[in-house]
Amino acid sequence: MNGEQSLIDRIRRAIPSRPRRTIRSASRLRLGIGDDAALISPPRGLDSVVTCDAFLENIHFLPDVHPPDSVGYKSLARATSDIAAMGGVPCFFLLTLALPARRTGQWLDGFLAGMSRAAREYRLVLAGGDTSCQPAVAISITVIGEITRGAALTRCGARPGDLIYVSGALGAAQLGLQLIRRGLHRRKSWKPLLHPHCYPAIRIALGRFLAARHLASAMIDLSDGLSTDLTRLCSSSGTGARIWQDRIPAVGVPPLLRARGFDPLAFALHGGDDYELLFTVPRRLAKKIPARHLGVPLTPIGEITRGRKVSLAGKDGRAVPLHPLGWDHFRG
Amino acid sequence: MNGEQSLIDRIRRAIPSRPRRTIRSASRLRLGIGDDAALISPPRGLDSVVTCDAFLENIHFLPDVHPPDSVGYKSLARATSDIAAMGGVPCFFLLTLALPARRTGQWLDGFLAGMSRAAREYRLVLAGGDTSCQPAVAISITVIGEITRGAALTRCGARPGDLIYVSGALGAAQLGLQLIRRGLHRRKSWKPLLHPHCYPAIRIALGRFLAARHLASAMIDLSDGLSTDLTRLCSSSGTGARIWQDRIPAVGVPPLLRARGFDPLAFALHGGDDYELLFTVPRRLAKKIPARHLGVPLTPIGEITRGRKVSLAGKDGRAVPLHPLGWDHFRG
Repeated sequence: MNGEQSLIDRIRRAIPSRPRRTIRSASRLRLGIGDDAALISPPRGLDSVVTCDAFLENIHFLPDVHPPDSVGYKSLARATSDIAAMGGVPCFFLLTLALPARRTGQWLDGFLAGMSRAAREYRLVLAGGDTSCQPAVAISITVIGEITRGAALTRCGARPGDLIYVSGALGAAQLGLQLIRRGLHRRKSWKPLLHPHCYPAIRIALGRFLAARHLASAMIDLSDGLSTDLTRLCSSSGTGARIWQDRIPAVGVPPLLRARGFDPLAFALHGGDDYELLFTVPRRLAKKIPARHLGVPLTPIGEITRGRKVSLAGKDGRAVPLHPLGWDHFRG
Repeated sequence: MNGEQSLIDRIRRAIPSRPRRTIRSASRLRLGIGDDAALISPPRGLDSVVTCDAFLENIHFLPDVHPPDSVGYKSLARATSDIAAMGGVPCFFLLTLALPARRTGQWLDGFLAGMSRAAREYRLVLAGGDTSCQPAVAISITVIGEITRGAALTRCGARPGDLIYVSGALGAAQLGLQLIRRGLHRRKSWKPLLHPHCYPAIRIALGRFLAARHLASAMIDLSDGLSTDLTRLCSSSGTGARIWQDRIPAVGVPPLLRARGFDPLAFALHGGDDYELLFTVPRRLAKKIPARHLGVPLTPIGEITRGRKVSLAGKDGRAVPLHPLGWDHFRG
């Protein structure tokens, strides 16, 4: 038996991968897994949206802590979030998977089950990939989506005076990560708090809504933390920003954990992995932004300013600089 | 200074990455590096061709042996070869790069120089990517190309009676690899023999020629060795094949190395990394296949047969089974 072929067959059986028109998208997969490359027919008037994202053992996940289905789910979710952040419809993905031989049994089954669940939720079809054998698990995912030409929401369109919104609550993933870092994640009562860290929700429908109705001037997903991702958006737009501290929808933290120093504001400002959307809205359009979209709260948390400073304004109105203290792989 | 941003800026400066219409392709990169995702406008009537490929430290390259510019060059070349194998025009690529901090200096400069050279040769524009920090170098590359709808050459179109062709000479990359494995690669006189292993040539023009003129019934690139890749093509096509041993254009091996057991036929049959094209041609079209295409020899080496057997016929006409003994990451 050809080992690599048998692995590819298992992946193909586990994850939706039939070449077909996907339910939601107009793009057609003419040729999927099993040839040198995939063939995709994008219809006229649509642009392709393409992104890639790595998910690495001991960097992005710990194999002894994170269940394999969480690794499969989250690796696909976070890559897909970049499509949501442009307002696009995710359609297809490619999976580059490097595994040690000891992870090709039960671990791989769990991984594929989690990835399959994410693929079904996001209506993604696996179009191709590459497999290799190496001592540590390394996952790289490319997601291809589609969007009406001209509708994509980039990071560079924010203008002074625009309101800054976020979806959902911020810091929930960081709360889960801190439970793991402090060895508290095995306590039954706190297990539910791990969920946003292990199985993040992706805001595809919200991104599409904002892009299709031209309601936002700029958008980014919160993958590395509000302070870091807002700084990126401002840097791309050539603007500053002022965040209103008391408006930030920070994650709820149980009093017992607050007593141990778990700080909801710090989690909300600098915690990564939330994958909520941060978007800016010209004031004249603000009345068209609902308080909730499909049940997800949309909260104005600040405004875009002239200059380049990103600051945090307290209840007393005094502003302090908000430095990008979120996740950075190569911080010096 | 934000470390990750400074790394991204270095990559962007080193590798062609301006959003623009590429010289050769009709697809337009509307938005490149620096946002959540890239935006590509494919013109009407063209399909997108998409592939991804991993290139990993100690699996695909040895950092103490392979110069960093070879790692950059080859990782992009081999990913691009999958586009050539469909007959497509490569246009854009995404780079997922994981590096240890100690490889972010001179090593990275060399790596980017090699990748930039390959990108310029293949007229590829870097459209996006992802960077992370981990103990070993891991590269994953996604290449996006284009092809006229219906013109792509897949693995599954071979029919009994078709002639089997290969481009170039086979086994040259394996010769280089064996020099390294036996510690002979530092000898000055044998350095030129390493070139095909470190900087493989990719047959983009040949693939386009065969696809555009509808001359081939099936095609695959020789990444894992003739015996393995031919078996894949036959398996996809539901056919067998007979290879004529004395027609195989095996690499020239110096007598000194032959005396040490370097076997050109074994290299040609089972050596990977050649990236020559293997394609099948209906007999009525064989007269349209030139002996050379842009200087690259095209050699008929066998024929597609009924059944599922892949065999090797010696000079005496006796055939023995040709087992897939090329590269397999997960051989049991």
